[in-house]
Amino acid sequence: MEVLRVKTRRRTEFVDVTDEVKKLVAALGVAEGVCYVYVPHTTAGVAINEHFDPDVATDLEGVFERLVPRAGAYRHAEGNSDSHAKAVLTGTSQAIFVEEGKLMLGQWQGVFFCEFDGPRERKMWVKVIGNASEAVTRKGEVNQRRR
Amino acid sequence: MEVLRVKTRRRTEFVDVTDEVKKLVAALGVAEGVCYVYVPHTTAGVAINEHFDPDVATDLEGVFERLVPRAGAYRHAEGNSDSHAKAVLTGTSQAIFVEEGKLMLGQWQGVFFCEFDGPRERKMWVKVIGNASEAVTRKGEVNQRRR
Amino acid sequence: MEVLRVKTRRRTEFVDVTDEVKKLVAALGVAEGVCYVYVPHTTAGVAINEHFDPDVATDLEGVFERLVPRAGAYRHAEGNSDSHAKAVLTGTSQAIFVEEGKLMLGQWQGVFFCEFDGPRERKMWVKVIGNASEAVTRKGEVNQRRR
Repeated sequence: MEVLRVKTRRRTEFVDVTDEVKKLVAALGVAEGVCYVYVPHTTAGVAINEHFDPDVATDLEGVFERLVPRAGAYRHAEGNSDSHAKAVLTGTSQAIFVEEGKLMLGQWQGVFFCEFDGPRERKMWVKVIGNASEAVTRKGEVNQRRR
Repeated sequence: MEVLRVKTRRRTEFVDVTDEVKKLVAALGVAEGVCYVYVPHTTAGVAINEHFDPDVATDLEGVFERLVPRAGAYRHAEGNSDSHAKAVLTGTSQAIFVEEGKLMLGQWQGVFFCEFDGPRERKMWVKVIGNASEAVTRKGEVNQRRR
Repeated sequence: MEVLRVKTRRRTEFVDVTDEVKKLVAALGVAEGVCYVYVPHTTAGVAINEHFDPDVATDLEGVFERLVPRAGAYRHAEGNSDSHAKAVLTGTSQAIFVEEGKLMLGQWQGVFFCEFDGPRERKMWVKVIGNASEAVTRKGEVNQRRR
């Protein structure tokens, strides 16, 4: 498991971490499998969406700010119940395929760390799982198509 | 990695692709593991929900249309910022268990390609990862329970 | 694949199942990989968020109740279209890393079964996939870094 550090600058901020994830995956050297990015926080999430036009991330920040109001009849005393809800709505992890050692994002897709209670120093965990079917197939032992 | 092609007919449309995913998984011949469906687009997602009563998909389309307004103070010039946000809310991928070569959906569950900026010609990527614990266990080499 | 049983007591309820998932993962004995929790229902989901202060779960229940109205112009005749939508918004599965045989949750994170149409008797499926890259690397056969 690898650890990425992310410094956020605003309360709500979609930070593009695509290049950092790509570099990690290349360094790990797994030819074929699935890459997971996981956020170990409870007021931040991770999303995959367009990173070509930075205005998309700005619009996404606005949508999430409006979707769950910051003020309300909340019981949690820290004043960030909306941040917890936004983290649930984006999700805590994303899975991305790895083929020939490369991260298989769609043409316009990037990976965003989604800050909902910043600014803070954050972490993102990254792991690549190799494909057992592939590994085993190469040895001709288990894969059913070979029988 | 396999590629499914999906033709959507409306701006917002939950398309039932369960049968196509099941056929792919059967053809791949992995006995035990996890199947991933991944959408490489930024204005479409993928969800698992009831496909027995088609009215559920219709109601889900309505909920998503109302959840994020199409018009608003958006900066992205393509007029589909709401579509990007809806894709983030459903998610870019889903994971489904594979047991004895079969896709393990719940009794009422189906897999839906979620179009939020159609109609378009779309793709969905599918991959099945075999379980290394299983493969390795058969050879008695790594799994800790065998020690 | 292991099965956890969850008894819910309210229509909307975030049930903390962290301890049950941790016990299952320890019993499965996979040293390194990814643990998946999967909800086979269509009106319930699963989320990862703060479980230290139980008020956070209460606030999350309130946010979801307000986010999708229970009454509306729905076609599905069972009166739970909002529950289906909430299940799509939280998601059907979560992935959590396993390192040295342990579930790698963040410091404040717990796993919640998210009931949106209770009270009911529910199930959650759990599977741990071992890392093929690790297994194969130990034998020096496939991992590219060894070449």
